[in-house]
Amino acid sequence: MKLRELAERLGCRLEGDGDIEIARVSGIQDAKPGDLTFVANSKYESALADTHASAVLLREGALTAPCAVLRATDPYLAFARAVALFAPAWRPAPGVHAMAAVAAGAQLGTNVSIGAFVSIGAGASVGDNTVVFPNVTIGDGVRIGSDCVIHSNVAIRERVVIGHRVILQNGVVLGSDGYGFVRRSDGTHEKIPQVADVVIEDDVELGANTTVDRPAVGETRIRSGTKIDNLVQIAHGVTVGRNVLMAAQVGIAGSTDIEDAVVFGGQVGVGGHLTIGRGSVAVGQSGVTNSLPAGAIVAGYPAIDSHEWRRSSVLFKRLPELKRRIEELEARFAELSAQLDESGDDTE
Amino acid sequence: MKLRELAERLGCRLEGDGDIEIARVSGIQDAKPGDLTFVANSKYESALADTHASAVLLREGALTAPCAVLRATDPYLAFARAVALFAPAWRPAPGVHAMAAVAAGAQLGTNVSIGAFVSIGAGASVGDNTVVFPNVTIGDGVRIGSDCVIHSNVAIRERVVIGHRVILQNGVVLGSDGYGFVRRSDGTHEKIPQVADVVIEDDVELGANTTVDRPAVGETRIRSGTKIDNLVQIAHGVTVGRNVLMAAQVGIAGSTDIEDAVVFGGQVGVGGHLTIGRGSVAVGQSGVTNSLPAGAIVAGYPAIDSHEWRRSSVLFKRLPELKRRIEELEARFAELSAQLDESGDDTE
Amino acid sequence: MKLRELAERLGCRLEGDGDIEIARVSGIQDAKPGDLTFVANSKYESALADTHASAVLLREGALTAPCAVLRATDPYLAFARAVALFAPAWRPAPGVHAMAAVAAGAQLGTNVSIGAFVSIGAGASVGDNTVVFPNVTIGDGVRIGSDCVIHSNVAIRERVVIGHRVILQNGVVLGSDGYGFVRRSDGTHEKIPQVADVVIEDDVELGANTTVDRPAVGETRIRSGTKIDNLVQIAHGVTVGRNVLMAAQVGIAGSTDIEDAVVFGGQVGVGGHLTIGRGSVAVGQSGVTNSLPAGAIVAGYPAIDSHEWRRSSVLFKRLPELKRRIEELEARFAELSAQLDESGDDTE
Repeated sequence: MKLRELAERLGCRLEGDGDIEIARVSGIQDAKPGDLTFVANSKYESALADTHASAVLLREGALTAPCAVLRATDPYLAFARAVALFAPAWRPAPGVHAMAAVAAGAQLGTNVSIGAFVSIGAGASVGDNTVVFPNVTIGDGVRIGSDCVIHSNVAIRERVVIGHRVILQNGVVLGSDGYGFVRRSDGTHEKIPQVADVVIEDDVELGANTTVDRPAVGETRIRSGTKIDNLVQIAHGVTVGRNVLMAAQVGIAGSTDIEDAVVFGGQVGVGGHLTIGRGSVAVGQSGVTNSLPAGAIVAGYPAIDSHEWRRSSVLFKRLPELKRRIEELEARFAELSAQLDESGDDTE
Repeated sequence: MKLRELAERLGCRLEGDGDIEIARVSGIQDAKPGDLTFVANSKYESALADTHASAVLLREGALTAPCAVLRATDPYLAFARAVALFAPAWRPAPGVHAMAAVAAGAQLGTNVSIGAFVSIGAGASVGDNTVVFPNVTIGDGVRIGSDCVIHSNVAIRERVVIGHRVILQNGVVLGSDGYGFVRRSDGTHEKIPQVADVVIEDDVELGANTTVDRPAVGETRIRSGTKIDNLVQIAHGVTVGRNVLMAAQVGIAGSTDIEDAVVFGGQVGVGGHLTIGRGSVAVGQSGVTNSLPAGAIVAGYPAIDSHEWRRSSVLFKRLPELKRRIEELEARFAELSAQLDESGDDTE
Repeated sequence: MKLRELAERLGCRLEGDGDIEIARVSGIQDAKPGDLTFVANSKYESALADTHASAVLLREGALTAPCAVLRATDPYLAFARAVALFAPAWRPAPGVHAMAAVAAGAQLGTNVSIGAFVSIGAGASVGDNTVVFPNVTIGDGVRIGSDCVIHSNVAIRERVVIGHRVILQNGVVLGSDGYGFVRRSDGTHEKIPQVADVVIEDDVELGANTTVDRPAVGETRIRSGTKIDNLVQIAHGVTVGRNVLMAAQVGIAGSTDIEDAVVFGGQVGVGGHLTIGRGSVAVGQSGVTNSLPAGAIVAGYPAIDSHEWRRSSVLFKRLPELKRRIEELEARFAELSAQLDESGDDTE
């Protein structure tokens, strides 16, 4: 594609030769002639001078480059769209594979693609244009919207409801039984049947091998626009708001309510029955044991305000020094007391 | 179901109108007319006055409600049983799906249900009434007891032994190779073949995408009545005792012995070759690096007695203040020393 | 097998009766007559005197035993090989199962074994002697080398490249979309298409339910000889060097470069865009937030030098005592000041 056409398609202003042929989008360190590249992280700005790319996406007014430049108001968004323009086609042909098992009475929309070894249960429905890759299990009564992508080896349990344009990465489990047991007097546990609902709203994406449990009563719900990374645990009865981001290996305990636009770093743990206020942030590995007000930024275990945490964390490393200073004070004090006693004795 | 009948089936004492029709069990905040609800967490007691439920499960002697009441000695247990009474039927019809692959010589009990795309290896056996959902792989020589539920997309490796009434949530892996390698002098590693046994005893439940490894020698064993949540790692050679509870994302390193009735919060990590004493508890995210005596309650990393940990943890937040107090003491001491030196000088 | 023959095959020096029949390899605590055992962990040395094993693998010159001894330069390596000698045969017969779905044009090497419900996409290739267990999904254009073992329920996405002698434990996901989104001005997120490469080099082993994401541009690469445990997250654009070891539940954020021979304990988290120097070590549960030089050994969160961390960690437990000592100093100082003021008053 000519750089001129690319600029037009991405809504960028072109600086340089519009006749250059662009064949690929690549990272700044790997870029070769024929590549469009970008600077997404200031760490890589210094690499710009030495890039072999033929063109680079840059913000209006910022930086210059030894190659052609596409000026964008949001270069990262332009990069995302450029990647899409060059991405290989991946959509399998519509149709139901001969070795799929679709229960009589399951409803398939137009233009769906159902791969080999996909099992679709009685009363389930799959919306228009949705793609289901091989070895996916869709339980009885599941409802899946249109334009979804269900990657291979996903398990969707009975009666789970999924909206439109949802993407489930491989190995996702939806609607597994929540972890609910009542202790009997002999120390054994009785299972509380987990039979209530799981709802995944529109435009949600769930990462590989992530699990979302169903509750005994009520529902587990992930609201529209939320993006969750791999190996995350969403326990029974949790509500996740709109446009929430959770990095890999986060775990949310039961019945917690996570409001819109919350951000969790990797491996964060959140206790049960809490409310995590709108737009709050927990940095990676923190352990949230109390509800958070809107806009909180927390770190550590138990998670506290991240500035406070940083100040204490710096001092954690200096604990041996602080101890030494206490010991020194004690020694000097003892010495002084001895002197004073002596001088006191002297004056008697 | 009439409330009177429900009271009888749950063994509860009825206060109020026994002719009320109950159609559903629900949480106190969502309850509508026709619902039976409960108070499981004191946090929700205040919601009781405003509930729209038609009836509520309460302990004998405690609280009152603006609706009919079922008095139970253990309301939470009664709730579990009430949920079961109203749960939708879920059991697939007995039989072997036409697109299952059952090896010649594999033994299936009476009344089993084997779903589509289930592969059962040579010499494997599945007990009476056990349900195997689609896309499950059961390796050669596996033995599964009766009344088990194996949810979709589970992988059970060769020769694993599973007791009765075991529930495996979706995506569970049993009998994968333990992480065992010997370093060679050139820095590469030689695999120690992991070919020994995995035994899952009666009444165990394992959560979605949880993994249980097999060892090179000896066995990995999970004893009866233990309930494990999602995304948990049980390494090779681990023994987990009876009626143990582990929340999501816990990881247990190799050859550790976990005694009966232990409780681990979410994301707890436990080192290898340890003994975790009967009934001990590790709170969420703690890292257990030493063996624990029976009844220990630990927190933090490295995990220490939880009371000790809490005391230190509170002071962690106050480290900047403690440092300031040390600095103040130093300053006052320096001032005092100067004064004393001066006054000493004066007296000379 | 006669002990004499075993000694020969393992390259060990025999002390004792070479005519003893050995039927099994077992751990020192479980060993019975007819067993060969070993001492891999000094914790178990004391058990040696009481072992019922018929023979034991020991280092030259070290320890003695109440049974026959096989002296080895590396007893643990000899143990690994002994286990292999007695391991049950596990390799399924070559051939393609009648209920596999192999796309026209996919290339299968000689002597491959393809299990039931395996889906192999268009343009994919599987090398000689590779075994693919049931319910595995292999996407379009995937290339798998020879002598690999792909355990059941693995998902390999389109165009992933896998070397020779690679072992994928059950439930592994390779090539799932990396977690890459651009925030739009309305708070929603646009997906950056994740369409670039994942390369798994020779002799790599990945544990059960581990996930490896593909990036938007560039590649995710795991170099030869690296062994990764269960439930590990390798994000998009990460490079993992040669002979790296990662225990279970480790998470590596995007674009991080992990050099050769690095070792991570369980549940370690590593931030994005970092460089982890050759041979460095992070102990279990640590959180690595900065790049590490070669040979670093770190612990804690944020991870610091492990010796420093240990010194501070010991003092964390003693924070209540340190606070008490500060309070004592303050009290004594106040008392002293009062005395001095008084004596100062006296002298006026």
